[in-house]
Amino acid sequence: MKRVYLSGPDVFLPNAIELGEAKKKLCITYGFEGLVPADKKLDLSKIPGKYAKGVAIYHADLKLMQDCDFTICQLTPYDGPSADVGTVFEMGWMIGMGKPCLGYTNSPLSMLDRIKSMGHTISIDAQGWPVSEQGLRQEDFDMSDNLMIDGALEAQGFPMIRHAARPDQLYTDLTGFEACLKLAKQRFAS
Amino acid sequence: MKRVYLSGPDVFLPNAIELGEAKKKLCITYGFEGLVPADKKLDLSKIPGKYAKGVAIYHADLKLMQDCDFTICQLTPYDGPSADVGTVFEMGWMIGMGKPCLGYTNSPLSMLDRIKSMGHTISIDAQGWPVSEQGLRQEDFDMSDNLMIDGALEAQGFPMIRHAARPDQLYTDLTGFEACLKLAKQRFAS
Repeated sequence: MKRVYLSGPDVFLPNAIELGEAKKKLCITYGFEGLVPADKKLDLSKIPGKYAKGVAIYHADLKLMQDCDFTICQLTPYDGPSADVGTVFEMGWMIGMGKPCLGYTNSPLSMLDRIKSMGHTISIDAQGWPVSEQGLRQEDFDMSDNLMIDGALEAQGFPMIRHAARPDQLYTDLTGFEACLKLAKQRFAS
Repeated sequence: MKRVYLSGPDVFLPNAIELGEAKKKLCITYGFEGLVPADKKLDLSKIPGKYAKGVAIYHADLKLMQDCDFTICQLTPYDGPSADVGTVFEMGWMIGMGKPCLGYTNSPLSMLDRIKSMGHTISIDAQGWPVSEQGLRQEDFDMSDNLMIDGALEAQGFPMIRHAARPDQLYTDLTGFEACLKLAKQRFAS
């Protein structure tokens, strides 16, 4: 049975454990074993100091990822217009390791529309780039996030799954997650 | 001469080209050849459609990274409390590829202090985690960003370089960048 690492800002939610369990159950129905960050064996009480604890968690998460065959990333915007950076690091690392990566977002907007929806005013600069009122260039590639994210998914044949979740289920709606599982099942069966 | 990929939100700045040239000049003084995203050979006018253009840029940037021996990432917070996600993807990918990665931030704050400085009120939940007023857990590891970022740098023996830049030089101050070059020179000489 192939193992899938379930990456996302899920770990920061108050119901992180329940959400992880729900995702793992869904994985089983598609023939996969799901692993979440909470699966690591790590006794933080034995590690002195905050910084050393953080480093230990990094190593333990990396070990979990090493033990998995592929990953499904929740890429719903978190704490800003883009996906959670911890998730994006893991996505990059897995792809660098040659392991497939699928991703979903519970925001249906394109990156540029999301920037606009956050109240930014976009104009076009002398080189034809969209720029914010701070003069920062904005991506306009009909992608849901930074082009390294959507580009990486596309390059593997798993374009970003976009789903419009209800606002109160922004991080917990599993429609896009299940769509990723379906795609993975098709890919690994063939 | 070793090649270093210069990753960062620099590409979104109005003076991206000048900043890239300044970084490349500094690289030379430390014995490295610096490559920036603008170095790719890509005629976007020949690629039809926004999405396809974005994917083409992804592939071209990946090619540049493949051609480099290591990377220096600008990890100054961008569009929120954390580093630019495109940069973080590249960092993860390079490390997954087994290539060293150094990083600097022009914000001296820890992640938790930055969240507080953005106006969030932090309390402690029943499990002892710091949580924001939205109930989202916050990291408190005396790190400058998400633990996957600082942890990855630490794991390679290149802890995050933190520098307090003047606000008007938040993305252009090269003190931290030059500190990374010094560390890289020491490492690769030995």
